[in-house]
Amino acid sequence: MSSRTVVRGGLVVTAADEIHADVLIEDGRIAALAAGGTPAAEAWTAERVIDATGKYVLPGGVDVHTHMELPFGGTFASDTFETGTRAAAWGGTTTIVDFAVQSVGHTLREGLDAWHAKAEGNCAIDYGFHMIVSDVHEEILAEMDLLVEEGVTSFKQFMAYPGVFYSDDGQILRAMQRSAGNGGLIMMHAENGIAIDVLVEQALARGETDPRHHGEVRKALLEAEATHRAIRLAQVAGAPLYVVHVSAMEAVAELARARADGLAVFGETCPQYLFLSTDDLAGPGFEGAKYVCSTPLRPREHQAKLWQGLRTNDLQVVSTDHCPFCFTGQKELGRGDFSRIPNGLPGVENRMDLLHQAVLDGHLTRRRWIETACATPARMFGMYPKKGTIAPGSDADVVIYDPHAEQVLSAAEHHMNVDYSAYEGKRVTGRVETVLSRGVAVITEREYTGHAGHGVYTPRSTCQYLS
Amino acid sequence: MSSRTVVRGGLVVTAADEIHADVLIEDGRIAALAAGGTPAAEAWTAERVIDATGKYVLPGGVDVHTHMELPFGGTFASDTFETGTRAAAWGGTTTIVDFAVQSVGHTLREGLDAWHAKAEGNCAIDYGFHMIVSDVHEEILAEMDLLVEEGVTSFKQFMAYPGVFYSDDGQILRAMQRSAGNGGLIMMHAENGIAIDVLVEQALARGETDPRHHGEVRKALLEAEATHRAIRLAQVAGAPLYVVHVSAMEAVAELARARADGLAVFGETCPQYLFLSTDDLAGPGFEGAKYVCSTPLRPREHQAKLWQGLRTNDLQVVSTDHCPFCFTGQKELGRGDFSRIPNGLPGVENRMDLLHQAVLDGHLTRRRWIETACATPARMFGMYPKKGTIAPGSDADVVIYDPHAEQVLSAAEHHMNVDYSAYEGKRVTGRVETVLSRGVAVITEREYTGHAGHGVYTPRSTCQYLS
Amino acid sequence: MSSRTVVRGGLVVTAADEIHADVLIEDGRIAALAAGGTPAAEAWTAERVIDATGKYVLPGGVDVHTHMELPFGGTFASDTFETGTRAAAWGGTTTIVDFAVQSVGHTLREGLDAWHAKAEGNCAIDYGFHMIVSDVHEEILAEMDLLVEEGVTSFKQFMAYPGVFYSDDGQILRAMQRSAGNGGLIMMHAENGIAIDVLVEQALARGETDPRHHGEVRKALLEAEATHRAIRLAQVAGAPLYVVHVSAMEAVAELARARADGLAVFGETCPQYLFLSTDDLAGPGFEGAKYVCSTPLRPREHQAKLWQGLRTNDLQVVSTDHCPFCFTGQKELGRGDFSRIPNGLPGVENRMDLLHQAVLDGHLTRRRWIETACATPARMFGMYPKKGTIAPGSDADVVIYDPHAEQVLSAAEHHMNVDYSAYEGKRVTGRVETVLSRGVAVITEREYTGHAGHGVYTPRSTCQYLS
Amino acid sequence: MSSRTVVRGGLVVTAADEIHADVLIEDGRIAALAAGGTPAAEAWTAERVIDATGKYVLPGGVDVHTHMELPFGGTFASDTFETGTRAAAWGGTTTIVDFAVQSVGHTLREGLDAWHAKAEGNCAIDYGFHMIVSDVHEEILAEMDLLVEEGVTSFKQFMAYPGVFYSDDGQILRAMQRSAGNGGLIMMHAENGIAIDVLVEQALARGETDPRHHGEVRKALLEAEATHRAIRLAQVAGAPLYVVHVSAMEAVAELARARADGLAVFGETCPQYLFLSTDDLAGPGFEGAKYVCSTPLRPREHQAKLWQGLRTNDLQVVSTDHCPFCFTGQKELGRGDFSRIPNGLPGVENRMDLLHQAVLDGHLTRRRWIETACATPARMFGMYPKKGTIAPGSDADVVIYDPHAEQVLSAAEHHMNVDYSAYEGKRVTGRVETVLSRGVAVITEREYTGHAGHGVYTPRSTCQYLS
Repeated sequence: MSSRTVVRGGLVVTAADEIHADVLIEDGRIAALAAGGTPAAEAWTAERVIDATGKYVLPGGVDVHTHMELPFGGTFASDTFETGTRAAAWGGTTTIVDFAVQSVGHTLREGLDAWHAKAEGNCAIDYGFHMIVSDVHEEILAEMDLLVEEGVTSFKQFMAYPGVFYSDDGQILRAMQRSAGNGGLIMMHAENGIAIDVLVEQALARGETDPRHHGEVRKALLEAEATHRAIRLAQVAGAPLYVVHVSAMEAVAELARARADGLAVFGETCPQYLFLSTDDLAGPGFEGAKYVCSTPLRPREHQAKLWQGLRTNDLQVVSTDHCPFCFTGQKELGRGDFSRIPNGLPGVENRMDLLHQAVLDGHLTRRRWIETACATPARMFGMYPKKGTIAPGSDADVVIYDPHAEQVLSAAEHHMNVDYSAYEGKRVTGRVETVLSRGVAVITEREYTGHAGHGVYTPRSTCQYLS
Repeated sequence: MSSRTVVRGGLVVTAADEIHADVLIEDGRIAALAAGGTPAAEAWTAERVIDATGKYVLPGGVDVHTHMELPFGGTFASDTFETGTRAAAWGGTTTIVDFAVQSVGHTLREGLDAWHAKAEGNCAIDYGFHMIVSDVHEEILAEMDLLVEEGVTSFKQFMAYPGVFYSDDGQILRAMQRSAGNGGLIMMHAENGIAIDVLVEQALARGETDPRHHGEVRKALLEAEATHRAIRLAQVAGAPLYVVHVSAMEAVAELARARADGLAVFGETCPQYLFLSTDDLAGPGFEGAKYVCSTPLRPREHQAKLWQGLRTNDLQVVSTDHCPFCFTGQKELGRGDFSRIPNGLPGVENRMDLLHQAVLDGHLTRRRWIETACATPARMFGMYPKKGTIAPGSDADVVIYDPHAEQVLSAAEHHMNVDYSAYEGKRVTGRVETVLSRGVAVITEREYTGHAGHGVYTPRSTCQYLS
Repeated sequence: MSSRTVVRGGLVVTAADEIHADVLIEDGRIAALAAGGTPAAEAWTAERVIDATGKYVLPGGVDVHTHMELPFGGTFASDTFETGTRAAAWGGTTTIVDFAVQSVGHTLREGLDAWHAKAEGNCAIDYGFHMIVSDVHEEILAEMDLLVEEGVTSFKQFMAYPGVFYSDDGQILRAMQRSAGNGGLIMMHAENGIAIDVLVEQALARGETDPRHHGEVRKALLEAEATHRAIRLAQVAGAPLYVVHVSAMEAVAELARARADGLAVFGETCPQYLFLSTDDLAGPGFEGAKYVCSTPLRPREHQAKLWQGLRTNDLQVVSTDHCPFCFTGQKELGRGDFSRIPNGLPGVENRMDLLHQAVLDGHLTRRRWIETACATPARMFGMYPKKGTIAPGSDADVVIYDPHAEQVLSAAEHHMNVDYSAYEGKRVTGRVETVLSRGVAVITEREYTGHAGHGVYTPRSTCQYLS
Repeated sequence: MSSRTVVRGGLVVTAADEIHADVLIEDGRIAALAAGGTPAAEAWTAERVIDATGKYVLPGGVDVHTHMELPFGGTFASDTFETGTRAAAWGGTTTIVDFAVQSVGHTLREGLDAWHAKAEGNCAIDYGFHMIVSDVHEEILAEMDLLVEEGVTSFKQFMAYPGVFYSDDGQILRAMQRSAGNGGLIMMHAENGIAIDVLVEQALARGETDPRHHGEVRKALLEAEATHRAIRLAQVAGAPLYVVHVSAMEAVAELARARADGLAVFGETCPQYLFLSTDDLAGPGFEGAKYVCSTPLRPREHQAKLWQGLRTNDLQVVSTDHCPFCFTGQKELGRGDFSRIPNGLPGVENRMDLLHQAVLDGHLTRRRWIETACATPARMFGMYPKKGTIAPGSDADVVIYDPHAEQVLSAAEHHMNVDYSAYEGKRVTGRVETVLSRGVAVITEREYTGHAGHGVYTPRSTCQYLS
């Protein structure tokens, strides 16, 4: 006989609806929803009853941009799949899609195998992989088809980082043409890295070595330029495009223009661009290093345009680009030379809470919160409705969320393996209480009850967003 | 004990999801949804089981723009609330919102009472009312507040038809200011009627009296102008705006521009603008009179921009503007003078089918079909989730839709009380099979099993679209 | 034998060129230009030689928007044609185009005759007339043709001032259609007066009676709206359009959009919008009344967009809308009710100097100064190259301008018949030294040497700007 | 005593004016203009009188984009400086600016010296040089400063032709930064050559080898992309930008957007894009090779947008990109492989006539013809008013143009050293009759009376267009 859980009395919030309903879970999946108090609901019996009265019942968060254990600039992102997925669970996220990396001169398969090895048996929640493609040629293009078939349906390219991850426009065009055929989705880091490297060199030559110069040389116009270029290349290739970590309002304008022209172009932003700014990057001493990421933080006035883009659906997804480096020992590699500061911020644990605060602040509706953080990322990357919603048949990835609890974000409290919080001292209202992953409680009334290895690899279908 | 119905085996399609689920109805409301084949679903017993295998299970259509029995040009729209709502049911629509009319010199209340009298006891499906405001002054503004409180939460004004329904920009501004305060939503017929009347007079003076001249004088630019003007007035008033029956691509461009600027401006279009064109209006003899409506049909190239607007959410709603006049005896009033042809087309029965055909033709996704025809109209006018979706707690307004059945649209087959079909001879795939209204079968396997008076008045809350 | 004057040694600045050339004047016209120092130049003999070494030699200013002696709000603009044109000459302006007014119920001819009577024999410089059309019907339309033939080739309509000058959209459309046929140019006061009057009434009802409220109720959005509407009506009519006194950046955006679409739409702004702002309107006590004009002054941030519009040719003309009312006795009519303050500012004497200052401030090039203040107004209204340039055959309307002289603008120093200066205390560099009107010195080294009656009526051809 | 010529009775057409004036030439320069029939004009005596009654008197054409003797694809452009400048004179052009080429690994100076050697003593008309920069590094940047000082004030870079002239975005940014400092103007060949080369390779692999495929792979979107990128890089550098041979309407849109944003971005188009199309490129057999140039010819619908761009000043200059290759022996190098067809069309002789035809066809006004073909190119590249106008002090580069003569363009009649005409058989109205270069007649009533070596090198100041 099946194991059954009933979640009673909560307000079920999905991308589409806000309804008072009881949720029945059987064998790790959502079996049924019933209007509270109806005979149908009353008839349910279960081993476990979770009382969600006064709480939200949410689909687990889907974070499609994380970098656990990423090698970067001579060090590694400080969260392993174990620590990082545990922190994600604490923050109400039940699925991540991380990035396997092809090294130049190696096959996609080799990179993918390496990342599977890092993750397998270690994750608290379910996970999937995108593939970073560093080196496009005929064999790699053929390999892309194979990966799509086995559930790695998205490929990231970089217009930045020449000599490392960089692809030139010909390589990008070829990959896009291939993805137009095999259904893969190209994800683009859109910054003109060739031009930026000139500005970096010039800044360092002028003795401008502090973290804030990182923000100054990686100009918003050069993000917008690359965004536009990626759009045009996608248009030539007849392929859809997903632009990662959009931070510049000028880039949002390019996305908006493309969408007004009817193109299948999508954009993601991250909490750091919505809540932080160059003010943080210009912190005292070397503090700004905590806020070094690429695309960089922008002046405060960009935030309003990002929020508007999320509201008007010119931006579709909020992910974290979680890529933590400890201040001590890691960020410090770049003292005296901002270009050597490892790029990345911690955030996988904070996303759901920060966006709930945005709901309270009037930036987003509740449904749009869930749409940008759960439903659309799942759809965009081929996991819906298994992930990203609460509907009959979905995985029972469910968060019981207390919308009235107050908390102060802090490195002292968080569960990410990093020695600082990008949001240190920020008060937010709302907090995860209980988290189910495929029906199993991994967080139970603010205690970790999961274990490494509960999370399983999730192969994905192709992008569902336009169908 | 409650009456129970189960709909088994169908594909439940809502604005948000497409899921294989069984639907349990208790006492006229959706009690629960359960994944097919689960113990939860299997456990359900019911007096009535509807087998929807191979069918779609849809929320009943919500048509927020109908004109039953409307007095216009010395005659009346040919469908009564009885015939019109029955035809709506045949077409899979389970809720209409019709327009009560304030006559100049009379109160809103008087108009509303008159329309209640026409509808009450006569409708096959549920209905609500918007209020046409023809005469804005202080008392009328005060009356608007009262109407909002009792569930008439939307008010239509006309920038066209001077001397009849026309409001000047001052009256519009005042009504918008009031609605900004009381939560009402201004619906706008956006055509520059003052300028159009000059062109009408000039055309008639030149002997241009045929129906096609109706399309020529009511210029797309003058629809776009009025649309822009209404948007600016709404911006001054700080009020949201809903533009009815958008037909010109230039008007869509104005809506898109407004939305890119972050304004709460919405647009509705109708099947006639999506499927018909000035080619129809220029039909042989006086045939074109069948296609006389305002805003008028546009040249064919406008259609692609309307479809795009629906896809990019610059247009949110598809309604019918159902306002039928018989060709014989009614449309004929305008022989020799196009300006005397009663304005309006029949369509309340055809909307769901035409839009399903649009899904097959690749214009819309299935979910967007339901969103534009059911969910958004309900949200926009304060009836969601009671109407417009299939969710626990919703009214059991459910359509069993056969996506494979073929039909030919024709006056010989339709149930609207009008002697022609605007889509005569058009083949479409997909057909309504069974329709439940609050759990009661009004169409049962293509037989009418409803009755006049089943439908009840539905008071509405204020616009939910932005929350 | 002819009378000859030579202007030697100056820098001749026109819209097109900046050249060191001597200018030969014969019988009131420019006979020749010769490169300084050439045998051709040296050969010239003349009764009078003006040494312009170190000075600019400019075409006399052309101010196409003045209102001498205009009846408005129960009083009259305080400059007569005598005092106003004398002040114009002091400021380097040698041609004005004033507005004859049709009163409702009267013919255009009657209005034109009345204005001829006011001007004839009184002017220090040449003058022409536009016609304000207050009442469009068939006979008036026919009269427009006659006026075009006799040199009154431009007609002003008002979308503001209901009950006074206001034309509705039908009247505007008809006049535009007529002008499309007869070559006349419609000039538009673009503000939605119907909506503004609602806001005026509401403001007064709230006790908001100070001058600054004049600026608040006449909203930028309502200027932009009317601008857009006028553009669309012109597009329907197939007519060109000239929008007067553009002050709102949103209106500039509409003009830019129209020009990007290839439409023959032009815009004029005035020094008050370029140099003053709502800060002036909000001056202490009743001081703000000095700055009450319509369109109103705007917040400071609009200025940059106006300058940009002048640079990108989305605005083509700078005129003054000179319409002075004394503070004492006239502006004071509106104490306690801003809507009774006569609308208008003095400025005909200040335009050339203020724009020269703008050249020094980097807003415009020297050639653009002359283009917007002399050449384009002349072309736009059919007086080029007789007026607006220094070329063989042109009228010898010539200004010797000292670009290095400094002055402080002040009512104590100016020659306009009004008891305040809108630019009181403003320091500017550059000053008119000598002014020739058809070869006759009306200002001679900063002494007035002209006389009333020297100036003659100048019939105009149709708009030359697009040919 | 000086040599004097008078041109009597013509209509002097400049960018600014159209005036009936006599022109006095002394010692190779324009000494004076006088209104015809005035005593001033009558007083002139001269050795030579040219009767221009019924003719236009134009400034000589300024063609700022020619490639005489350019080495390309293993051959050389077929016009030498001798034959090419003679043909230019026949066509009413009295100044060319050609491109000296830096070879990779060599200095700018070496390239410039080589081009001086080709031109010196051989030219029929005056000439200047831009510098093609193929290889940007520190020494080259320093050399740019030197060249600006000696009159080579513009530098061309290529975003196309990887491995040949191509500069990457870093090299472009550096050159732009340098030009922002030294006043040089970067001219950009804006096509994404990296992406195009992928498409070329793919097309050839598919066996698509005909000339028309040249047009298909060099996509309009990739011209627009590169145009946008160049604009953004210029914006980052704070430098102005001049985009050469704009052919795609999407690229015009990028320029228009930039100008609406107030940027100093300029665009040039060429007669081949205004009069020819992909229809020509798709001619029978290998005929299309005659029309192979880069940017390529576009579909016919692009022409209207180019004309509009010229009218709205989103495009400022019409040059020829004259780069002829004989069909026999040169274009034939690309039989069986379109990528080996030498890129370029003949046109230096046809530009003035084709644009006069455009005046007659209503595309441009007469003044705009002279502005885009004479005045603006001279201003843009620092030669005004010496070149590009008829004003006291200017070089006496004067064309007597018969606006009524008819001619048929043809290789049989033209004077360019190439075996075909791109406009073979085209009838145009208007013809050059006499051409003076610095007062010397090089064409006299349709006879060549000039000689190689009359033309001298013309050093240039920096861009004057914005001052």
